[in-house]
Amino acid sequence: MHMYDLIEKKKRGGALSRAELDGLVAGAVSGDIPDYQLSAFLMAVYFQGMTAEETADFTLAMAHSGEMADLHDLPGVKVDKHSTGGVGDKTTLTVAPIAAACGLVVAKMSGRGLGHTGGTVDKLESIPGFRTALSREEFHAIAQKTGICVAGQSGNLAPADKKLYALRDVTATVDSMPLIASSIMSKKLAAGADVILLDVKYGSGAFLSEPRDAVALAQLMAGIGAAAGRRTAALITDMDVPLGVTIGNSLEVCEAIETLRGHGPLDYTRVALELSTALLVLAGRGTPGECRAQAENALQSGAALAKFREMVVAQGGDPAYIDDSSRFPRAACIEPVAAPVGSYLRHMDTAAIGRTSVILGAGRERADEPIDHAAGIVLTRKTGDLVRQGDVLAYLHTNTPAALSEARTAYLQALSFGPEPPAPRAEIYAYVDERQVRLYE
Amino acid sequence: MHMYDLIEKKKRGGALSRAELDGLVAGAVSGDIPDYQLSAFLMAVYFQGMTAEETADFTLAMAHSGEMADLHDLPGVKVDKHSTGGVGDKTTLTVAPIAAACGLVVAKMSGRGLGHTGGTVDKLESIPGFRTALSREEFHAIAQKTGICVAGQSGNLAPADKKLYALRDVTATVDSMPLIASSIMSKKLAAGADVILLDVKYGSGAFLSEPRDAVALAQLMAGIGAAAGRRTAALITDMDVPLGVTIGNSLEVCEAIETLRGHGPLDYTRVALELSTALLVLAGRGTPGECRAQAENALQSGAALAKFREMVVAQGGDPAYIDDSSRFPRAACIEPVAAPVGSYLRHMDTAAIGRTSVILGAGRERADEPIDHAAGIVLTRKTGDLVRQGDVLAYLHTNTPAALSEARTAYLQALSFGPEPPAPRAEIYAYVDERQVRLYE
Repeated sequence: MHMYDLIEKKKRGGALSRAELDGLVAGAVSGDIPDYQLSAFLMAVYFQGMTAEETADFTLAMAHSGEMADLHDLPGVKVDKHSTGGVGDKTTLTVAPIAAACGLVVAKMSGRGLGHTGGTVDKLESIPGFRTALSREEFHAIAQKTGICVAGQSGNLAPADKKLYALRDVTATVDSMPLIASSIMSKKLAAGADVILLDVKYGSGAFLSEPRDAVALAQLMAGIGAAAGRRTAALITDMDVPLGVTIGNSLEVCEAIETLRGHGPLDYTRVALELSTALLVLAGRGTPGECRAQAENALQSGAALAKFREMVVAQGGDPAYIDDSSRFPRAACIEPVAAPVGSYLRHMDTAAIGRTSVILGAGRERADEPIDHAAGIVLTRKTGDLVRQGDVLAYLHTNTPAALSEARTAYLQALSFGPEPPAPRAEIYAYVDERQVRLYE
Repeated sequence: MHMYDLIEKKKRGGALSRAELDGLVAGAVSGDIPDYQLSAFLMAVYFQGMTAEETADFTLAMAHSGEMADLHDLPGVKVDKHSTGGVGDKTTLTVAPIAAACGLVVAKMSGRGLGHTGGTVDKLESIPGFRTALSREEFHAIAQKTGICVAGQSGNLAPADKKLYALRDVTATVDSMPLIASSIMSKKLAAGADVILLDVKYGSGAFLSEPRDAVALAQLMAGIGAAAGRRTAALITDMDVPLGVTIGNSLEVCEAIETLRGHGPLDYTRVALELSTALLVLAGRGTPGECRAQAENALQSGAALAKFREMVVAQGGDPAYIDDSSRFPRAACIEPVAAPVGSYLRHMDTAAIGRTSVILGAGRERADEPIDHAAGIVLTRKTGDLVRQGDVLAYLHTNTPAALSEARTAYLQALSFGPEPPAPRAEIYAYVDERQVRLYE
């Protein structure tokens, strides 16, 4: 196999064979294929795409490029859930304990925040003592004992994806459907779950703005999952507004705890229950109606909150913060943002709001930057609300007072007002698996 | 300037500004921009192209990335001629002395052969003693004294092109019109001539098969030349058959000497005279008719041959070989290829014939391979000829007897026979400059 010929073939719109993709992935990991050839190939894929079969072959080659996590000794159905990234997207913090409370095994690796999107690992680390860097043995032992463990990515999972993603990140080749799908799914396949539920987001806070693109990506990933013998499905969910009412690490943990107590915001609660239901259905726990009832019961009975607390204890966190979330340190500066006009809040540029939270210290632009766990935004008005001039739209939380002025300007610039209310949007647009696309009402 | 943003801009189909292209070229040469970003950019250019203005800006940036040859102290009009590459393409060996005999200054850098195309430097080096590696001072002194000097590329001309071409060569991004045009023209501009004549070839032995593509490339290059203030034009010439009757280094030198004596093959003589005429017109030596007469006179009077001999002496070559070309060493094996059928020779795959000459030792596949100056092919039948079974189609010359069998098979596979004669093709298709495309009758 000559890499030159593979680049040329892709450039001309051809589909690479499994053997060619295996060779390419092996060469990427070993370093035998130089970066300049890989990046030319990635750009050719951006323009020419990949067939569904090719994407699946590429994903499997990347999944097998390193360790394949072996979860088969854990009792029960092992489930995983992946979000394509959003702002205020704290679903894992409720879905994982609901699923575990219903008897599924959630042994999950999560990521850190970057750019305008947050990461579950950062959020959990805002709980004092909580450890996300676990050895494979610890990870296994905790999942075995409690049925739930959420850790940072460890070991040598899908090193080909790591290599190629780093190149894509600096060569403007991130935004390619087959490359996105194969990157996500290679890690999910390597992580070893039987059931994979994808939360594919669209709207101003997601990298895909249109629901049809989110459906296409979901279909591609569901097809890959099915080709790899995993039960895989996706919900297409709205990220045109931040999810829930908080953005920022400890703020989101507090919101998740409130939601596990049954007092969460409606949109976040709905999405969490729908994702949990989908996981249970995929895991074979009954009809959608039965699974929905199990998920609601786990929430209402307190079993999900208990499971969350159990995970926190098992991973070294201080449960006193779960029992009384007022213990979380609050930011030194908390400043309201007032409405400049009386009007409908018609739209929120949610990526811009995510970047505002980064200005406040809640996120990072580069992977090596520290974050301020207490920083963030509490939303008091969201898209569709009629506001009066001077109403508080949000509270900015930060330990960096100098950031406030820039953040306030950025926050206001992210909002659009008008005399008419915007068209309502549903939280969930569609369910997608390898056989069907089911639109929600 | 962030290279990421330039890649993204080109990927989206945008045109880069002069400042952006200057920064890109400077970063390529300094090494500040890593190869993987350059190759992603080159692939994006392959798909999105460049505007004419962008291509000119890119070319000028590359031309100025190293030394700009300064020929202004040479008396008279300095002319250059560039062929996009062919098989048996020995035009420089006659055009340069004809032009010099007419009083133009030909201070020209040429290349070596690679793949199926030959190179003037290799051809000249088949003359015993001939030196093509000249210092800048020698090059200048010879051009000043004789009005003609043909050397290998020396100095640090257009290092950005060298860098980017090496990357294109291994990332399947050679075949892009703006990249081809900018690569050729950056070197020509840096080489310092006032007049640049391009010989853009099309057909089975050229990298462009269609005349319309050759015209498009010529227009692009003529526009760049004009933008840089050089008098630039192109002839679009046929490379669907090898030019003349020889392929191989000393064989082609002998054919050129014969042609300078007025006994050359018709097609080669016609192309050489037409290129010489175009050079003279560009240099302001009169009407096309007057210039044609000057060129023919230089040939018929022996002045062009004398100029060639003068150059050979000045560059250290033994003129006895020019005076008596039977002195050139002949290959140890010279074997005829017989016609397998009696029929019209309908087509020659000229690139395949070029590769056959490489098998015989006349060329190289990699830049570091040696060549056999005596090896090559003498054609006794060409496209359009009616042959009888058993007629000699060509003689294969080699010092590597083991190569003969493969070369014979390759040669015959390159030919197509049929009962009908092929449509006749003219040697010259069109004249192109920045203002016009003039088709030949």
